[in-house]
Amino acid sequence: MELLFLGTGAGVPAKERNVSSIALQLLEERGATWLFDCGEATQHQILHTSIRPRRIENIFITHLHGDHIFGLPGLLGSRSFQGGDTPLTIYGPKGIQAFIEISLSVSYTRLKYDLQVVEIEEGTIFEDERFLVIAKQLDHGIPSYGFRVVEKDLPGTLLVDKLKALGIRPGPIYQQIKLGKTVQLDNGTVIDGRDFVGPPQKGRIVTILGDTRYCEASVELAKEADVLVHEATFAAEDSALAHDYFHSTAVQAAEVAKLAGVKRLILTHISSRYQGTLSEELLEQARELFPNTELASDFSSFIIPRKK
Amino acid sequence: MELLFLGTGAGVPAKERNVSSIALQLLEERGATWLFDCGEATQHQILHTSIRPRRIENIFITHLHGDHIFGLPGLLGSRSFQGGDTPLTIYGPKGIQAFIEISLSVSYTRLKYDLQVVEIEEGTIFEDERFLVIAKQLDHGIPSYGFRVVEKDLPGTLLVDKLKALGIRPGPIYQQIKLGKTVQLDNGTVIDGRDFVGPPQKGRIVTILGDTRYCEASVELAKEADVLVHEATFAAEDSALAHDYFHSTAVQAAEVAKLAGVKRLILTHISSRYQGTLSEELLEQARELFPNTELASDFSSFIIPRKK
Ligand SMILES: [Zn+2]
Ligand SMILES: [Zn+2]
Repeated sequence: MELLFLGTGAGVPAKERNVSSIALQLLEERGATWLFDCGEATQHQILHTSIRPRRIENIFITHLHGDHIFGLPGLLGSRSFQGGDTPLTIYGPKGIQAFIEISLSVSYTRLKYDLQVVEIEEGTIFEDERFLVIAKQLDHGIPSYGFRVVEKDLPGTLLVDKLKALGIRPGPIYQQIKLGKTVQLDNGTVIDGRDFVGPPQKGRIVTILGDTRYCEASVELAKEADVLVHEATFAAEDSALAHDYFHSTAVQAAEVAKLAGVKRLILTHISSRYQGTLSEELLEQARELFPNTELASDFSSFIIPRKK
Repeated sequence: MELLFLGTGAGVPAKERNVSSIALQLLEERGATWLFDCGEATQHQILHTSIRPRRIENIFITHLHGDHIFGLPGLLGSRSFQGGDTPLTIYGPKGIQAFIEISLSVSYTRLKYDLQVVEIEEGTIFEDERFLVIAKQLDHGIPSYGFRVVEKDLPGTLLVDKLKALGIRPGPIYQQIKLGKTVQLDNGTVIDGRDFVGPPQKGRIVTILGDTRYCEASVELAKEADVLVHEATFAAEDSALAHDYFHSTAVQAAEVAKLAGVKRLILTHISSRYQGTLSEELLEQARELFPNTELASDFSSFIIPRKK
């Protein structure tokens, strides 16, 4: 599990930072990539990474500002052109479907894969055996969502050595034991499967928020997350601007991280007014309040390790 | 007058060539830039040039395939964000208006300038005192236009030395003479203005075609043009593919240039299957038939000199 930042700027592309997109690499977990937002030229950024468009399984759109969606039509078309044939689902606020439908129809784009577009509301918007994704509205003047990606706990591993020590050999019975069931062996002995399974592996939590002012929903979505990705469009001294434009300062991002008790905070969506050393100041400001903070750049990558 | 190629690839962006866009720089002529097509990340390419989005006056769209239009919404928004406040007009096939409207409305983009979208048919689609633009349909499976940009002839310059030799001093009378009128001097002498004006300066003709198979309309649009910009998606040996996908080979482009009697041919819209030396082969193939051919790369620039 790895976060790979494809665009870390705000509003308009600049040479240093492209507009928003973040890839959550779930290659080990499900052989897939999930995207969060897809600003213009996201597919161009992908050309400089190991991401394969055909592997993109879900795209979550936080909100409909152009710097978060204008890369969608091109990416969808190129994924098909390059042979992608597995289904793709896009989750986003109301309006995303009309944008995609018109963009594809006007441009005569015919996809060779099944595309689903889900217009979301608050709640659990995705769930399968391994993951669930919870969405909540933030405070950005227009509908803007934050996403809490929850990896479900994995059952403990089978203690094979302990079984073998008892003379229990591999076979269909291992499945039953792994599920923690009580089973009777051929020799009549009854054993409790739970005694032969290690502790469950805790799943990880990754919270990725759309553009927002400081708000309570951010804290709820980020509660005890392994990683919180929060916008930091402005520096602390520009908090009036941040308020006026429905954005956050680096310090407000750190406050959310602290209140939510997350392990690590990553700042993104940095205004082009803060370049070079100026952007380092945003990082310093956040670290004063929440030391385990990082500042994302385009192509920054952060591994999210399993909990011990 | 200068052509600056912003994207010279076909279909999908590649590291070497972005998707289609060409800037016609008319800085001396009208302090403006005209764009032809606007594939995704055209605004990103512009960041690496001297083009100022606020100077873009007209955008001509040849056809609605995604690699020719998906950069429009972002460019329109950024032009406003960066302070552009002068009017902008987009000319393109039917459907372009719906695409722009939905893209801007869904993304809550409010432009601070007047945007006109003109859905074109064949004929003269633009005309003012200095320029006119003629559109004609090509052969691309979907509506695809070629554009003939005609600079009107400039009246000759006033022969000031000749006037001064006759003792005629600068004043309002110079305006009359420059217009070729017959005027009476203070001393009673009558002179014919036409004797004191040099020959008119011939205007230039630039023909920029959308994607197309070889067709008669291309030849008509390119008749005696100073420059013809023609797609060359395929090499000569792949002419069957070119036909199937409604594209041209480099040799077909050269045939059009030769039949139309143009001064110079520039090849663009090169498939990513021809990289490096392979793309040089396209150039060689065209030059065998039409020697004054160039192969455009991203950021190639071609000055179009005045006729002598
Ligand atoms: Zn926003
Ligand atoms: Zn085309």
